[in-house]
Amino acid sequence: MKRIESIQNQKVKQWRKLHTKKERDASGTFLIEGMHLVEEAIKNKSNIKELILSEDTVIPKGWDVDDLSIIYVTKEIMKAISETETPQGAAAVCIQKDSGSISTWKKVILIDALQDPGNLGTIIRTADAAGLDGVILGDGTVDPYNSKVVRSSQGSIFHIPVVRKKMDEAISELKQNEVAIYGTSLQNGSDYRKAETSGHFALLIGNEGSGVREEWLSLTDQNLYIPILGKAESLNAGVAAGILMYHLVK
Amino acid sequence: MKRIESIQNQKVKQWRKLHTKKERDASGTFLIEGMHLVEEAIKNKSNIKELILSEDTVIPKGWDVDDLSIIYVTKEIMKAISETETPQGAAAVCIQKDSGSISTWKKVILIDALQDPGNLGTIIRTADAAGLDGVILGDGTVDPYNSKVVRSSQGSIFHIPVVRKKMDEAISELKQNEVAIYGTSLQNGSDYRKAETSGHFALLIGNEGSGVREEWLSLTDQNLYIPILGKAESLNAGVAAGILMYHLVK
Repeated sequence: MKRIESIQNQKVKQWRKLHTKKERDASGTFLIEGMHLVEEAIKNKSNIKELILSEDTVIPKGWDVDDLSIIYVTKEIMKAISETETPQGAAAVCIQKDSGSISTWKKVILIDALQDPGNLGTIIRTADAAGLDGVILGDGTVDPYNSKVVRSSQGSIFHIPVVRKKMDEAISELKQNEVAIYGTSLQNGSDYRKAETSGHFALLIGNEGSGVREEWLSLTDQNLYIPILGKAESLNAGVAAGILMYHLVK
Repeated sequence: MKRIESIQNQKVKQWRKLHTKKERDASGTFLIEGMHLVEEAIKNKSNIKELILSEDTVIPKGWDVDDLSIIYVTKEIMKAISETETPQGAAAVCIQKDSGSISTWKKVILIDALQDPGNLGTIIRTADAAGLDGVILGDGTVDPYNSKVVRSSQGSIFHIPVVRKKMDEAISELKQNEVAIYGTSLQNGSDYRKAETSGHFALLIGNEGSGVREEWLSLTDQNLYIPILGKAESLNAGVAAGILMYHLVK
């Protein structure tokens, strides 16, 4: 157990840098904060590089912190590394686990160039709730270790594998494994309510404004749309993904 | 056509006050900003009390602004009344229209004590997309004229009636009109996938943390839940509402 009292400490500087994508990418780690997220993370200790606790934090019953690297800090330091006005007593440096095999995945969501961190976090949370095997992020999608993504995921980023992969390679590998690929489109395709699935599927969701890129839509088995019955132009991307995931997973 | 150049002008002060719920309630108006929202609002001129344009704004083709009260302002004033760093060239004072009869409504979402403005705006947008007749907000729900709600609704607040009403009175009136009431619950009730409806329904959604109040759940015809198939504790309220609305509206 270590203790840090100076805000000038190198570790504190390093933790603060984790608010930037550049530093997250370079270190292969990311910073989380708050009791709930930390609790979800430590359920699998391999997530954790360092557990950071305020000096007055009492470790809740039920948290198994054996063998974890624990660092106690002053409230001033906790505030300095936090993005919230009134930080809770726990934070952690976590290990990025975004590579790995998708060869056994049969229920998948593919995400192409989604921009909004809240939308991505919500989709990861819904994919977890719907019992999917994993989430694949194509190029141009917001960093899944962005703190807003992690927060919106409500801890699901620690429950379900999230991997970054070239979209064409992912689609090709899933097809080889006989997983049907469903694109989504505002203009073309079939009403999703008529889509019948085997329960194995990969659902491809695109950018909030421009949707899924044409080059990927041409690789799918079928493209689906959600009918707009009123005057709205479109649905929120997170809501649309949720409606489709729960339909396909049946 | 008027023109205001001084940031000290009484109207400018009044517009800025519309960022508070107190002033919105007292005046029965609310402030919107951005070309897209203003465009949606002026499609029905009775929404608009005052259209506010930057001095360099060219009114887009297709905007019918005849008979509207238009006020041109300096960029400095537009920035002062805006909540964004780089305001667009249009804003408007709009009229709150949250009272009205629900006697003909057959497809309804009832919202009890929902707190997050983004969630409420997203639910209004989805209710519009799903072709519902209207949205009813019970006590304790976030102000629908909060700028974040309006923004998340993507203009749907101008497409679909949103009324504030006592929840027990709303349920009672809907029941008299033979609209089946579906509550939502994490613990009890039926799997939503087995719920069969006539296409007429009122769906009752609750607070993000605590769900629908027990006193309302006891008044429903049936309570539904969305099964959690993975490790997530729950779904985002906006996503859950979307899955259920699109299921029931079939």
